[in-house]
Amino acid sequence: MEKKVGAEQIKDGKIRFRVWSPFAEAVQVLLKDQNQLLDLQKDEVGYWETETDKAAPGSLYRIRLDEEDTFPDPASRSQPEGVHSWSQIPISEFNWTDDSWKGRELSEMLIYELHVGTFTSKGSFEAIIEKLDHLEELGINTIELMPIAQFPGSRNWGYDGVYPYAVQDSYGGINGLKTLIDTCHKRGFAVLLDVVYNHLGPEGNYLSQFGPYFTDKYHTPWGSAVNFDDEYSDHVRSFFIQSALMWLEEFHFDGLRLDAVHEIIDRGAKHFLKELSLEVDSLEQKTGKRYILIAESDLNDNRLVTSYKKGGYGLEGQWVDDFHHAVHTVLTGENAGYYKDFGKMEFLAKSFEQGFIYDGIYSVFRKKKVGNSPKGIPSEKFVTCIQNHDQVGNRLLGERLAELVSFEELKLAAGLLLFSPYVPMLFMGEEFGETSRFQYFVSHGDPELVKAVQKGRKREFEYFFHTKGSFPDPQSSETFESSKLNWEFEKEDPKKHIFEFYKEMIRLRKEGNFKAFLEGERKVDFSEENNWLQVTSEDNNGKLKALYNFGKSTIPLKESENDKIELIISSSNKNWGGQEEVNSRSSSVPASSFVIYKIY
Amino acid sequence: MEKKVGAEQIKDGKIRFRVWSPFAEAVQVLLKDQNQLLDLQKDEVGYWETETDKAAPGSLYRIRLDEEDTFPDPASRSQPEGVHSWSQIPISEFNWTDDSWKGRELSEMLIYELHVGTFTSKGSFEAIIEKLDHLEELGINTIELMPIAQFPGSRNWGYDGVYPYAVQDSYGGINGLKTLIDTCHKRGFAVLLDVVYNHLGPEGNYLSQFGPYFTDKYHTPWGSAVNFDDEYSDHVRSFFIQSALMWLEEFHFDGLRLDAVHEIIDRGAKHFLKELSLEVDSLEQKTGKRYILIAESDLNDNRLVTSYKKGGYGLEGQWVDDFHHAVHTVLTGENAGYYKDFGKMEFLAKSFEQGFIYDGIYSVFRKKKVGNSPKGIPSEKFVTCIQNHDQVGNRLLGERLAELVSFEELKLAAGLLLFSPYVPMLFMGEEFGETSRFQYFVSHGDPELVKAVQKGRKREFEYFFHTKGSFPDPQSSETFESSKLNWEFEKEDPKKHIFEFYKEMIRLRKEGNFKAFLEGERKVDFSEENNWLQVTSEDNNGKLKALYNFGKSTIPLKESENDKIELIISSSNKNWGGQEEVNSRSSSVPASSFVIYKIY
Repeated sequence: MEKKVGAEQIKDGKIRFRVWSPFAEAVQVLLKDQNQLLDLQKDEVGYWETETDKAAPGSLYRIRLDEEDTFPDPASRSQPEGVHSWSQIPISEFNWTDDSWKGRELSEMLIYELHVGTFTSKGSFEAIIEKLDHLEELGINTIELMPIAQFPGSRNWGYDGVYPYAVQDSYGGINGLKTLIDTCHKRGFAVLLDVVYNHLGPEGNYLSQFGPYFTDKYHTPWGSAVNFDDEYSDHVRSFFIQSALMWLEEFHFDGLRLDAVHEIIDRGAKHFLKELSLEVDSLEQKTGKRYILIAESDLNDNRLVTSYKKGGYGLEGQWVDDFHHAVHTVLTGENAGYYKDFGKMEFLAKSFEQGFIYDGIYSVFRKKKVGNSPKGIPSEKFVTCIQNHDQVGNRLLGERLAELVSFEELKLAAGLLLFSPYVPMLFMGEEFGETSRFQYFVSHGDPELVKAVQKGRKREFEYFFHTKGSFPDPQSSETFESSKLNWEFEKEDPKKHIFEFYKEMIRLRKEGNFKAFLEGERKVDFSEENNWLQVTSEDNNGKLKALYNFGKSTIPLKESENDKIELIISSSNKNWGGQEEVNSRSSSVPASSFVIYKIY
Repeated sequence: MEKKVGAEQIKDGKIRFRVWSPFAEAVQVLLKDQNQLLDLQKDEVGYWETETDKAAPGSLYRIRLDEEDTFPDPASRSQPEGVHSWSQIPISEFNWTDDSWKGRELSEMLIYELHVGTFTSKGSFEAIIEKLDHLEELGINTIELMPIAQFPGSRNWGYDGVYPYAVQDSYGGINGLKTLIDTCHKRGFAVLLDVVYNHLGPEGNYLSQFGPYFTDKYHTPWGSAVNFDDEYSDHVRSFFIQSALMWLEEFHFDGLRLDAVHEIIDRGAKHFLKELSLEVDSLEQKTGKRYILIAESDLNDNRLVTSYKKGGYGLEGQWVDDFHHAVHTVLTGENAGYYKDFGKMEFLAKSFEQGFIYDGIYSVFRKKKVGNSPKGIPSEKFVTCIQNHDQVGNRLLGERLAELVSFEELKLAAGLLLFSPYVPMLFMGEEFGETSRFQYFVSHGDPELVKAVQKGRKREFEYFFHTKGSFPDPQSSETFESSKLNWEFEKEDPKKHIFEFYKEMIRLRKEGNFKAFLEGERKVDFSEENNWLQVTSEDNNGKLKALYNFGKSTIPLKESENDKIELIISSSNKNWGGQEEVNSRSSSVPASSFVIYKIY
């Protein structure tokens, strides 16, 4: 019963306009060039449509409701003049050359999260292509783009997007994006997209003019919730599912990262996430490609990645933030905000063992029990990181880990991530220890909103380290510019060494050196007092061990004289700027370092 | 970390008062007799307590917060002077004599729903005992009490209860209830209790004075939702779970009917219903008795009764209202309100086949798709009815089915219920075709609230048949009195015949005559045009068939001459006031009648 909305060229070259507006009494399309109004006809459930030869790809239009105001199309594919202005019918001419590309399993992914606007100085899709050599050298095989749905202005993390079908114009629009993805596929990179279906941004969101896209029954951090289960929700669900399918099918994305799914409130018998997952399964059947859905969730609920048969939503993966928080707090000693729930070696050990630390236990920060048991969930369903846009950018000052911990500790953190049994995700610049801050930036057009964001941002995150400096203005273009990566890292010793170290760890992981750990039983020991963590896995080829020393003094490996030890990597090796001349019989771990080795 | 709250006698004869109030600065107990204040001490999560020998069973008390106002105890076990007045420490002396009673499986139950206040003229627990002979003669084996948690005044359906731990005083209090249950068990009746954990009534609800028992994040038909998943929800969940366990363990109830669970909003990783179900499992281990949890739900979500292993909440059963609505609309032709979603023989057939009619299909009334597939759920997990307190009492005038359909149709409806593969539930008086209306009544103390209820009730249900008469005043005691059952039914021919008919159908069901249908494959045929429905089951002993004729003319059984037909029951038989002299070779079904027969 639900239909795809928007403007689309149909077989005879005509354009079909379709708008959902169940309560409207009249719906028209205003064509800019002709300055002409087209009447749309309504069906029994509130879809209005017409077919016309007066419009063509490239035409600009707006939707007029009830013979009064005109608005951009909620399903606009392009907003060349910004979120408040004309919608444009897409010109869809693109010659794909990635026919042989079939996608990639999550378990094979090494993900690199990037923000299009600040990854390169140009801040465009095309400019990313120039950096693929770098990413190839690094060894990652999957790029995850922060949201690119059209947002207000040209500076935004992307979570203020208001057109779930439109590609941000200032990044290069539809064809810029397709060129990037096509090139990535040819070079062996999968590409994921971060999509936001739990809310729309505060500026340029005209959806409520058209119909009940939101419900007052539930409140979210962004106001009224998207209507996923109330009256008329069938279309709203379909609206977002069609968006997801569009990114996968038309744009050849290999999967989606679903923003904060805990704010997708759906009490119905078929949860939106399950419906989305089933629809993507069908698309896989149709295209023969593999698509990956990864949820960001603060629920620690195993249901997300559990199979349909066992009552789950069947998603391929989910973020496990607990791992990040455990690493971050153990290294930095920070305990403000939600970090107060972490900070012990015991938690880091638990996260190495099973992902979720909060598996039903009480959270002091959240003032309630959180989570359920992840038992039985394969580790390849958890995506983890030691930095990401939120954990860096939601600090008032936006400091990256490289600014917060020492050079040796930075490598220690990388060792925790890349040796972890989970799917690792790097945040752009992390691979060379970028120290320029990644801050929160917007470019709203509404001065009142700008003020509200400036104040709100400060209030929301003030518990995070507000004493260290003055608060950067989100609206200032300087905040945006200074968040860009500095690509001269090869000229700086520490950065260059960090890069070499990441390359080596990624190589070891990809070549299967950590396989026993990824696939086998994990045994984790630790000492809270002496600040170390040891993980052990055993398979037919012997024991694989990693010993992480968070303390200030060297600790010896506790192996017997008779064991044959083969060193795989030592983070304090001179090769990557450390103090140690490491040989294969090294038997101790210096302060803030780790070693990975095998025993036969 | 959560603790049981309330006043309780502990081992040394002292009384322990415990109150949850995380934000209070001071909590005291005011003892009425001594006119004395006792100070309570706070633990780290907001429980305040003290032990004292200044109070004893029977003592009246209130809780004083922040050295200002006093309130009744949210966990009060008794409110002898009403919902606004003193709480009383229970005098718990009762000698149980039902040791050998171990409960009853849902699949064995034949349930009888009754409202304590109007079931008998006295309106008390004890008066019910006098009617057990009648219920025994009828043949039901399980009584379900509408809610009995303390409500304002003495007239209320029970859904305005405000003390989840207190027994309605005007019904006979704690010992009246225990006497009833003990007697029921000795006579072979299981007893279920309807509990309301999705909201509290509008008068006498002081919970928010004590702590965040409610959350503004979600709205329900009764206002802010009970806080099942926000900060501090651990205690709120425990508060209701302790109530459930109290009814089962201390009062020996055999199970609970959980009111409108779709308004228990919980996005957490361990749903409240699953947690409750697991706690009740543990109680079964402890007591060696069987407890049954039955949800009322409008979600048509198989998750409720699915096993934990398959991702479900593990409840024993759920109501399936679709069956009622299908029967009701086919018989009455009504299509107002939610009845517009039903009214076809096709729907009735579908409900006979699988329970849920709305299994993911679009509901015109609810303006969205509803439900998921009940495939694989045993029919014994669905409880169904052809009348209940809601379906009768939520009509503006409160007409029972006996007032809406003919005498023969009443038996036809009973035949659909008692031959159905689901667990049947009768509504008090249904068994003798009671015609006195069951209306909505309250006895609030607050005049503003009374006005609001009078108006609100009218508005909410005005689409139901408002042209037929004037609206009864919920606050009037006459509305209550006229809702009581008339027990002289034996003197009226039609009523007497209905009773005989129910007895016979129940006997047949209990003696296993419908077993093939309950346990085997069901085949359902129907004719929309000719108004009949046929259900067939086959097992080793042959075919069991029921043919229901909703039309105005006789229809023949469509069996071949060679089949040996054995008639099991015919609703139009003279035995129960019909027109037919039925013999075992009857081969047709008169208008508004049904027959059940076997073929060899």
